[in-house]
Amino acid sequence: MENTTACLLISCPDKQGLVAKIANFIYSNGGNIIHADQHTDFASGLFLTRIEWQLDGFNLPRDLIAPAFNSIAQPIDAKWELHFSDSIPRIAIWVSKQEHCLLDLLWRHSAKEFLAEIPLIISNHPTLKEIAEQFNIDFHHIPITKETKIEQEKKQLEILAKYKIDLIVLAKYMQILSSDFVAQFPQIINIHHSFLPAFVGANPYQKAYERGVKIIGATSHYVTADLDAGPIIEQDVVRISHRDTVKDLIRKGKDLERIVLARAVRLHLKNRVLVNSNRTVVFE
Amino acid sequence: MENTTACLLISCPDKQGLVAKIANFIYSNGGNIIHADQHTDFASGLFLTRIEWQLDGFNLPRDLIAPAFNSIAQPIDAKWELHFSDSIPRIAIWVSKQEHCLLDLLWRHSAKEFLAEIPLIISNHPTLKEIAEQFNIDFHHIPITKETKIEQEKKQLEILAKYKIDLIVLAKYMQILSSDFVAQFPQIINIHHSFLPAFVGANPYQKAYERGVKIIGATSHYVTADLDAGPIIEQDVVRISHRDTVKDLIRKGKDLERIVLARAVRLHLKNRVLVNSNRTVVFE
Amino acid sequence: MENTTACLLISCPDKQGLVAKIANFIYSNGGNIIHADQHTDFASGLFLTRIEWQLDGFNLPRDLIAPAFNSIAQPIDAKWELHFSDSIPRIAIWVSKQEHCLLDLLWRHSAKEFLAEIPLIISNHPTLKEIAEQFNIDFHHIPITKETKIEQEKKQLEILAKYKIDLIVLAKYMQILSSDFVAQFPQIINIHHSFLPAFVGANPYQKAYERGVKIIGATSHYVTADLDAGPIIEQDVVRISHRDTVKDLIRKGKDLERIVLARAVRLHLKNRVLVNSNRTVVFE
Amino acid sequence: MENTTACLLISCPDKQGLVAKIANFIYSNGGNIIHADQHTDFASGLFLTRIEWQLDGFNLPRDLIAPAFNSIAQPIDAKWELHFSDSIPRIAIWVSKQEHCLLDLLWRHSAKEFLAEIPLIISNHPTLKEIAEQFNIDFHHIPITKETKIEQEKKQLEILAKYKIDLIVLAKYMQILSSDFVAQFPQIINIHHSFLPAFVGANPYQKAYERGVKIIGATSHYVTADLDAGPIIEQDVVRISHRDTVKDLIRKGKDLERIVLARAVRLHLKNRVLVNSNRTVVFE
Repeated sequence: MENTTACLLISCPDKQGLVAKIANFIYSNGGNIIHADQHTDFASGLFLTRIEWQLDGFNLPRDLIAPAFNSIAQPIDAKWELHFSDSIPRIAIWVSKQEHCLLDLLWRHSAKEFLAEIPLIISNHPTLKEIAEQFNIDFHHIPITKETKIEQEKKQLEILAKYKIDLIVLAKYMQILSSDFVAQFPQIINIHHSFLPAFVGANPYQKAYERGVKIIGATSHYVTADLDAGPIIEQDVVRISHRDTVKDLIRKGKDLERIVLARAVRLHLKNRVLVNSNRTVVFE
Repeated sequence: MENTTACLLISCPDKQGLVAKIANFIYSNGGNIIHADQHTDFASGLFLTRIEWQLDGFNLPRDLIAPAFNSIAQPIDAKWELHFSDSIPRIAIWVSKQEHCLLDLLWRHSAKEFLAEIPLIISNHPTLKEIAEQFNIDFHHIPITKETKIEQEKKQLEILAKYKIDLIVLAKYMQILSSDFVAQFPQIINIHHSFLPAFVGANPYQKAYERGVKIIGATSHYVTADLDAGPIIEQDVVRISHRDTVKDLIRKGKDLERIVLARAVRLHLKNRVLVNSNRTVVFE
Repeated sequence: MENTTACLLISCPDKQGLVAKIANFIYSNGGNIIHADQHTDFASGLFLTRIEWQLDGFNLPRDLIAPAFNSIAQPIDAKWELHFSDSIPRIAIWVSKQEHCLLDLLWRHSAKEFLAEIPLIISNHPTLKEIAEQFNIDFHHIPITKETKIEQEKKQLEILAKYKIDLIVLAKYMQILSSDFVAQFPQIINIHHSFLPAFVGANPYQKAYERGVKIIGATSHYVTADLDAGPIIEQDVVRISHRDTVKDLIRKGKDLERIVLARAVRLHLKNRVLVNSNRTVVFE
Repeated sequence: MENTTACLLISCPDKQGLVAKIANFIYSNGGNIIHADQHTDFASGLFLTRIEWQLDGFNLPRDLIAPAFNSIAQPIDAKWELHFSDSIPRIAIWVSKQEHCLLDLLWRHSAKEFLAEIPLIISNHPTLKEIAEQFNIDFHHIPITKETKIEQEKKQLEILAKYKIDLIVLAKYMQILSSDFVAQFPQIINIHHSFLPAFVGANPYQKAYERGVKIIGATSHYVTADLDAGPIIEQDVVRISHRDTVKDLIRKGKDLERIVLARAVRLHLKNRVLVNSNRTVVFE
């Protein structure tokens, strides 16, 4: 169970024999499947699956698995990803001034909840530099103005490349990324301080207060060019009452944001999330 | 505890001595306060309170309580309501074709969860007539078209008056009431099949499915002229996943709608809800 | 999607190639798998799976599927069940005096939430006879005393056989079944008015009140000889406060019981529950 | 609203005129009540209230409030506490080897969620010394064996006295306090890694796993001589499934423990918890 595993995330048009085809590929090469989960989206006619097997005893050398699977994937028109449990993804956490999500991610990282490296923090403010130092993580302060945004994004992409970053986690980064940036670096998880699609945009807690809602939420999603509208990975809510001031909503919201973002990052790192057009399939 | 009680719901500009003033009014007349709850809304400078006391041993006869309290209420600019626990409100349930909320309310009524009478069901369809008969409740079928709406609303108001209705519960009544109607009969509770303010309007489950949300909700609110925007009384949510089809969302949503509407009706009937501009204070 | 499907629930010692073996059995006979879910319980070394495929186009006639699969199941030491989506299970609901769970099940049945027939209600009290009549269901009043229990259980088993019952749902049946009875009719779902394993036994709401808990729950489980200790299918909770009396806990508990029992029955009927020693795997 | 306030927590046998009596005491001395909450426990015949007022403009000097109120409290047989919002309680956090609750409390403290000072950490292990240093808090390592317990508790009491500690928070302190200790220092909040009263004692997550429950919880309570049976302040739960290993339960449990303990500490510090025999009244 603690052995190295390989994991395939596959989506393709549904047709007969897909499960057998994929399972046979693994079995005929001596692999032991430890998790297999499948979903057929009848609305879109898509078959989506996540399959994980032990590499111990698998006959194909690692570098031949992808090419070998490709010959199965092409005839069935599959989009797919292959991950190995011992290739550790590298995360850059992006922040502004608020620390709660950053700290929470860093604690979980040191508590070994995330199988990942976090070599880089980027911020448009210098505020959280000290936390970065305390956790021995490089901190890059890259201020953004309307005028400098495009130029600074170029710089950000260079730094991401230099640090070989696989995933950006926006942990209360209060800037909007350009669609160019998102096109060039599409692996980005955001935490939205609201129960999407309600209260999109700024000051959601103030708006929730004014509307007198009895429950507030938070949403973690992949970032797409369309702001706040990317595929949702995880959401959660907390009950509030008339006794809660806007300040209380912010405090309760912080707890939600920490937990919802951490769950989303963990699900992503465990390769449990498959994007299906603008929705996600989460194989929990 | 099972004795008859009186209950005052009061809101007024906050100032010193309000609690003492109101408590003294009751105490000096020999009343025993069994519940007192207060909220100061610092944002709007309002003091809101709910106070309930036993009539047993109270020196003022019932019909003199209101005039007596008025002399306290006027100088402090208070809006207030007085309720007696043995004056049973009369409810009209309005439905269209769906039965789940209606049935749920009727069961709870027969299980004595609501201290109310339900003499009247109004519907724009004949579909649920049989249920009305089964529970021995008068059923009025009042079809609505764009052309007949104003005329039919007049008829509805006459029926409400004839049955001496105190409260309308819209239990999946799929018609919009005119602002005129709402102005003339303002005591209306609605169940909205969505977690407001998300997915306002038609087909919220389809929209929730398409947006790929992980949690759906339902909202019960007072009806105002501004559709779906009245003060929220109660909300609740349920978790969903990619495995849930729109049909599953509808099924899960029904359970939510039943429970959220029932809680809101109960809170209203127990005089626990105070409207504060477009928000509610719920003294649970 | 609405075509007739077959469904296999399988558990066996884990080993290599199980997924491929089972998928091949279906594929080589022309079946189209629409759901496949698998779980490996590493603690017990068990492989558990649920696999559902369309019968349309499947080459094996129905009555040959079981014998054919048996030749695969035997070498891998599998325990398994085969279900067809068009063979409608027959349910007997057992009650005592409380109606809320019974009514809820019957309403869901008429709303087509359950694919099942409910031809029989058994009760140790005559209280709910009228409801049975209203829904056109046979009602058998079988009173139980300590002295008559064994004899009456014999009678109950005869009635179950006569009605060809597949599943008993104890919907607040306040009698304990003998282990003999359970051995002879093992398909029984119960609702326990508590968050097991807390407050096992009588008066859980009184006990919860006295202990001052902030949350109460309900549990639906399969019945085994060991009272209240059978495999748990579903649980849920609701928040309470010091303002809730024992009566309020009972009222809130009823809502929980209705929903938790309905969910458990639905999961069972959809063949989504696999018992793994004293635990369940629920393939949602 | 940000002015200094005084707060009375009162419990006494219920009788007529209590609200008026207490409100008059404050009003007649020029106090402005900003929160008043009351609960009558009809089962035990107790009246419990929390009342908070602004000291600005109050005619009584601080040191005379208690003696003045005493003359009201005595005739009504009241137990009561008086708190001032600007007298900051001093907390000692006790830990063993696990850091998650400690870190969470310290972060919330630096985020100003708690109005308190935390000058002291006591542990029976040296493991978390570094965290104490990082946050500039004195750390006392006081190892405990069966033989040294009584002696070490004496030492602990001395340290508590020296640091003028008002409240002990057991943040995963894995030792049982003697009833002598609890008698001498009764202000102790504990986090129990379970949904009490289920799975009392050691290894609750292992037990929850074995029992196959679908929901796990955590409980924060005041410590009494009777282990794990003190008045519950706050509880919460999280849903689990058959896919969760014991390790997953522990991870999910940690999140619960952090949040439930933090909520309980916050409620206590805001003087919102009144103990009523072995239950709490939480004026939220």
